[in-house]
Amino acid sequence: MKWWQQPCQRADNNFAARAEQRQQQLTKPPGSLGVLEKTAIRLAGLQGRDRPSADKVHISVFAGDHGVVAEGVSAFPQEVTTQMVHNFLQGGAAISVLARQLGATLEVVDTGILTPLPPQEGLIIQRVGAGTANSVNEAAMTHEQLEIALQAGADAVDRAIAQEADLFIGGEMGIGNTTAATALYAALLEQPAALLAGAGTGLNAQGIEHKISVLNTILLRHRNCDNDAMEWLRCVGGFEVAALTGAYLRAAQCGLPVLLDGFISTAAALVAIKTQPDVEQWIFLSHLSNEQGHQRVLDTLDQKPLLDLGMRLGEGSGAAVAVNLLRSACALHNDMATFAEAAVDEKLES
Amino acid sequence: MKWWQQPCQRADNNFAARAEQRQQQLTKPPGSLGVLEKTAIRLAGLQGRDRPSADKVHISVFAGDHGVVAEGVSAFPQEVTTQMVHNFLQGGAAISVLARQLGATLEVVDTGILTPLPPQEGLIIQRVGAGTANSVNEAAMTHEQLEIALQAGADAVDRAIAQEADLFIGGEMGIGNTTAATALYAALLEQPAALLAGAGTGLNAQGIEHKISVLNTILLRHRNCDNDAMEWLRCVGGFEVAALTGAYLRAAQCGLPVLLDGFISTAAALVAIKTQPDVEQWIFLSHLSNEQGHQRVLDTLDQKPLLDLGMRLGEGSGAAVAVNLLRSACALHNDMATFAEAAVDEKLES
Repeated sequence: MKWWQQPCQRADNNFAARAEQRQQQLTKPPGSLGVLEKTAIRLAGLQGRDRPSADKVHISVFAGDHGVVAEGVSAFPQEVTTQMVHNFLQGGAAISVLARQLGATLEVVDTGILTPLPPQEGLIIQRVGAGTANSVNEAAMTHEQLEIALQAGADAVDRAIAQEADLFIGGEMGIGNTTAATALYAALLEQPAALLAGAGTGLNAQGIEHKISVLNTILLRHRNCDNDAMEWLRCVGGFEVAALTGAYLRAAQCGLPVLLDGFISTAAALVAIKTQPDVEQWIFLSHLSNEQGHQRVLDTLDQKPLLDLGMRLGEGSGAAVAVNLLRSACALHNDMATFAEAAVDEKLES
Repeated sequence: MKWWQQPCQRADNNFAARAEQRQQQLTKPPGSLGVLEKTAIRLAGLQGRDRPSADKVHISVFAGDHGVVAEGVSAFPQEVTTQMVHNFLQGGAAISVLARQLGATLEVVDTGILTPLPPQEGLIIQRVGAGTANSVNEAAMTHEQLEIALQAGADAVDRAIAQEADLFIGGEMGIGNTTAATALYAALLEQPAALLAGAGTGLNAQGIEHKISVLNTILLRHRNCDNDAMEWLRCVGGFEVAALTGAYLRAAQCGLPVLLDGFISTAAALVAIKTQPDVEQWIFLSHLSNEQGHQRVLDTLDQKPLLDLGMRLGEGSGAAVAVNLLRSACALHNDMATFAEAAVDEKLES
């Protein structure tokens, strides 16, 4: 049995029920805080606490390069993966800015960028290879590489737990990874690539057409993966995508709530959920990505995202922007007065 | 000429253009931060700064009682208005918790609650009367009362400006005020009350039916107001609603951006916009309220709200929850590295 096949934890229904009862007693019309009430109740059940918290946030951004970039599927050159990792570490990228704003822990995990960076603070080096193989010609990863990548994600969650994080966010950087993610969606949801493929970092209509034809080639080549989500991940995914899958599986096993980012992260989460359906209960959806196809994917899940801001950056940025909503939900749940405490009359009998 | 007929300020297009140019240079695919980019650009133009800010937030919650409550239009007893004002001041209400979380200035303005509270810190006493008259029988306010209420809102904005606020939020508390707001919408948008009326603090279906019949009586009685938005405000509105209208007008005149709350606040804003269309450019929509009718109202404006969380509490709570989105937008705009600064390659020519 592989580690990722070990069972997930379950939410504590007692804490969820107590949280629901408390929401009914707070000084507001019942239900008037909408999704914020449901979020606080759910988090209380997952964290097994009367006072849920999203204060301590651990963000791991996994970076990897993609052999499929040789097919011309990205609007940005491949060097940008390494350049952006450098930017994350220097503090200039979107996720760096958001992590500072949140007071969150931010680490970057090199799971296999083409041009490695020297060891430095904030950089975890856990390289699976110098980029994946080109999935048009062969499996993106070997079986051994897949396991190393999954483990890199699990290790990040273990670090988050060692730091007593309340919430885990996985981000990613990898030029070409919307192609990998779209291939995973097409395979696992059995939907045409043409309906799921989008502009990624900024392809024009012609570029998207080409990306779709590359995707169809990939899907045909690896059709023997059948219904095996992990095998699809190995054949068409990326190191950073597999690391995210490993992270979500481990988080669910350890009982650490996850705030999911956008298009790429959801592909990794889908593999995790297909592997163990119980993973989904540990995941909060942060936002609807503007990347074509994300809505279709979210339609297959049981939740609605918190935000719809037309974002499509990745890095964990959408999840980071949504953290404050969880913090507001917790603050309201934990700090509002009850009707009794505040001597406020309750609703009239109707 | 009344003070509220003085012209509004205009956004500074130079700053907005510079902000737009900067967004193109930041290390991300152009447009990939979606609404956050547009929000930062717009705020830069309104604030006339290269580095927009939502750090200093001033929240004024206006409270008033409503004669129309005698008609049985609310699920909560009228005493709750005063009790909740007490709760605001004690720090136990939703808006109190959110203001603390934001480090925002919070003041409560008594514009005419039925049972006044003694002077105390955080309470501004600017009473227009002991609740409005019942709009089923007569105009809710006299002409003089309307002017005092509008002035109460303007004074709150003046205090915000004296404190160098970056952003103004108006909240409200007043049992019965969804009836007042719905009457305003029906009159100003010329739509049937039946399509706009909702549960307020929690009416059941029968209660909503009754509320609609009360609204139809009100609209018929005051039909001579015609297209005069201020006159409709006087006849069917509330002290706290009029104060919000005054606040939005003054904010637009002084060039202070406003983050609008939900159903009641939007009614007040609609009166302000009908009085001076230029007011709208100073207003950011924070959220879509779960109160029936809000979507119909927002459809008449040129913007989309930032959040859709099923909230329907008022107090300024929806706007307060959205402040962090503006702060994230500003942090990203101000603190991200440019492609040149970070030595990251730009998009390939397509």
